[in-house]
Amino acid sequence: MIALNKPLTPSLVKLSKYLDQVNKNGWYTNFGPLHQELTKRLEEYLGVKNLLLVSNGTLAIQVACKALNINSAITTPFSFVATTSSLLWQGIDIAFSDIDPLSYNLCPIALDEALAKDDSYDGIVATHVYGNPCDVYGISSVASKYNKKVVYDAAHAFGVQYKGESLLNYGDISTLSFHATKIFHSIEGGALIINDDSLVEKARYLINFGIKNTEEIPELGINAKMNEFEAAMGLCVLDDMQQLDIKRKFVCELYKKELKGVVKFQQQNEDSTQNYSYFPIILESKEQLKKIEKALNEKDIIPRRYFYPSLDTLSYISAKNFCKNSRDIASKILCLPMYPELDSANQKEIIKVLKTCI
Amino acid sequence: MIALNKPLTPSLVKLSKYLDQVNKNGWYTNFGPLHQELTKRLEEYLGVKNLLLVSNGTLAIQVACKALNINSAITTPFSFVATTSSLLWQGIDIAFSDIDPLSYNLCPIALDEALAKDDSYDGIVATHVYGNPCDVYGISSVASKYNKKVVYDAAHAFGVQYKGESLLNYGDISTLSFHATKIFHSIEGGALIINDDSLVEKARYLINFGIKNTEEIPELGINAKMNEFEAAMGLCVLDDMQQLDIKRKFVCELYKKELKGVVKFQQQNEDSTQNYSYFPIILESKEQLKKIEKALNEKDIIPRRYFYPSLDTLSYISAKNFCKNSRDIASKILCLPMYPELDSANQKEIIKVLKTCI
Repeated sequence: MIALNKPLTPSLVKLSKYLDQVNKNGWYTNFGPLHQELTKRLEEYLGVKNLLLVSNGTLAIQVACKALNINSAITTPFSFVATTSSLLWQGIDIAFSDIDPLSYNLCPIALDEALAKDDSYDGIVATHVYGNPCDVYGISSVASKYNKKVVYDAAHAFGVQYKGESLLNYGDISTLSFHATKIFHSIEGGALIINDDSLVEKARYLINFGIKNTEEIPELGINAKMNEFEAAMGLCVLDDMQQLDIKRKFVCELYKKELKGVVKFQQQNEDSTQNYSYFPIILESKEQLKKIEKALNEKDIIPRRYFYPSLDTLSYISAKNFCKNSRDIASKILCLPMYPELDSANQKEIIKVLKTCI
Repeated sequence: MIALNKPLTPSLVKLSKYLDQVNKNGWYTNFGPLHQELTKRLEEYLGVKNLLLVSNGTLAIQVACKALNINSAITTPFSFVATTSSLLWQGIDIAFSDIDPLSYNLCPIALDEALAKDDSYDGIVATHVYGNPCDVYGISSVASKYNKKVVYDAAHAFGVQYKGESLLNYGDISTLSFHATKIFHSIEGGALIINDDSLVEKARYLINFGIKNTEEIPELGINAKMNEFEAAMGLCVLDDMQQLDIKRKFVCELYKKELKGVVKFQQQNEDSTQNYSYFPIILESKEQLKKIEKALNEKDIIPRRYFYPSLDTLSYISAKNFCKNSRDIASKILCLPMYPELDSANQKEIIKVLKTCI
């Protein structure tokens, strides 16, 4: 079977060395030595400060919003469901603002219009869709105008540089996901990148039950701690990153070359590097998409309708906004198998099947 | 240093065999084969049905309350902070009802009185403190009278039998914690035990973003999935459980023999087995406690004020109830080092230091 992606597999020898160290330390979680090492190495690798590891990307968004006192937010309808559900789960009141039809990211003009009508929200939660940066200056300008906090769900944006520095340095907090299917992973895991130094201590308490020390619990917290085995996996995968980036780029460029003019692509931000984490294509219609999906499935190739559905259509959403662009894109977008070890023969088969359906 | 507890350390050879299997499967999380195996083995070991693994005990409580539609709850002030903070984090309105001064568990009479005054709460969240069962019949009777759901935080009650069957079978949902410091652990982890079969499917969706399949998201969910490395650790530890139970019992009985008449003990439920997970002692006063703590710390022995503080005193709690018994116990309780490998010489030293302070 050829799936959408394939988790990176560490060398068991290397992993065992780390796990032996964990056993010797007798320290399995709660900010252990490997957790500390991974934090430091990721800060260096990504070019960020104040990176806090957590146990998954959903908890990263939840902790970010609590740290920033966001109780209501305007957010994007075009993202993985967790961007919305993580907020609603903890009682954050949300409204959607539509996306730009070319970049698929939250549109600053629509956002400005939404806030002009109702500026009662505490924050903005936007996604760098498939790692393609939002118009961070546009969003920042709207946020400043209405005095809103900004959280970027950067689950797809690991390693992306924007105007020569880490994209994660934009917004008040950026969140990452290190789920096994991500380009960098720690099995399950994630992180917050916090731009305001004064928030770091609070955020650290939030992910460990609000505890400051054995007798003081100053904050309302939960358990969002990454454990030492997850950190060990992260350290193993991090060693291989640059080599894997090249392989993903190669896969991506073959798709681009072969599918140019056949399907539509996401419009890339020109000031940004790419991390080649996904290869989304836009088809003419839902019918064409279903035809292609069926034909690929018959060959045991499993692309993914990602993101689908548009989040403003979820059954548990009280209909506050109708997001036309998001619904349109969600109905016609398909992410193709995309991982470093996808071999050319298989990739050519995918392209061939796809072309025969168009 | 002698700490409160010491995480169980698996054989690296055994663990590596499981991790090799994970690497071969290429399946690191999302309900993988080891997750399935651990689920089945724990259901058998504990004598329960409908066990759902999750990534920690806090998320277990959160998911339990969402599954049962609990938006407001009466709960215990004497528990680890997560019992309260997990509820408040997701916007559940809470009130405290005081504990029984001997068992330290939620008192059914006080609970009845509280609900007689205000029965607007959806549920009751009680803790089996140190694995000592609540008066489950008393609580069940009150719950039936006012038509309330019951969640038991059974983080400490792994393996406890009550009247010949698993204690986890009482209440609507029981939750477990498998944190590294627990008697059974999966590094970080936890579980829900769901008594109502019809809730299981919903709860399973809740821990995986509410997703039913690639195109349907019927529930509001988060990510609370246990991963395969955590499941591997759980499988390793589970093999050794019975042998470890005997060692813990031995440590516990030495404390009991030597400290009988010197300090007060928790009153054990007579219809229940014990899992010997903690050894709490009640001292005469906070001053005596601080004296003992200081004397032990000087010998590099680290007991823990657990649970402290009483949760009705937390800074972020709007003072709804003053829980006299809980505050009194919390001010004078100390948990002594308690783990299978605690050797007799060290334990005798702890006892000696303690006695010289009294």
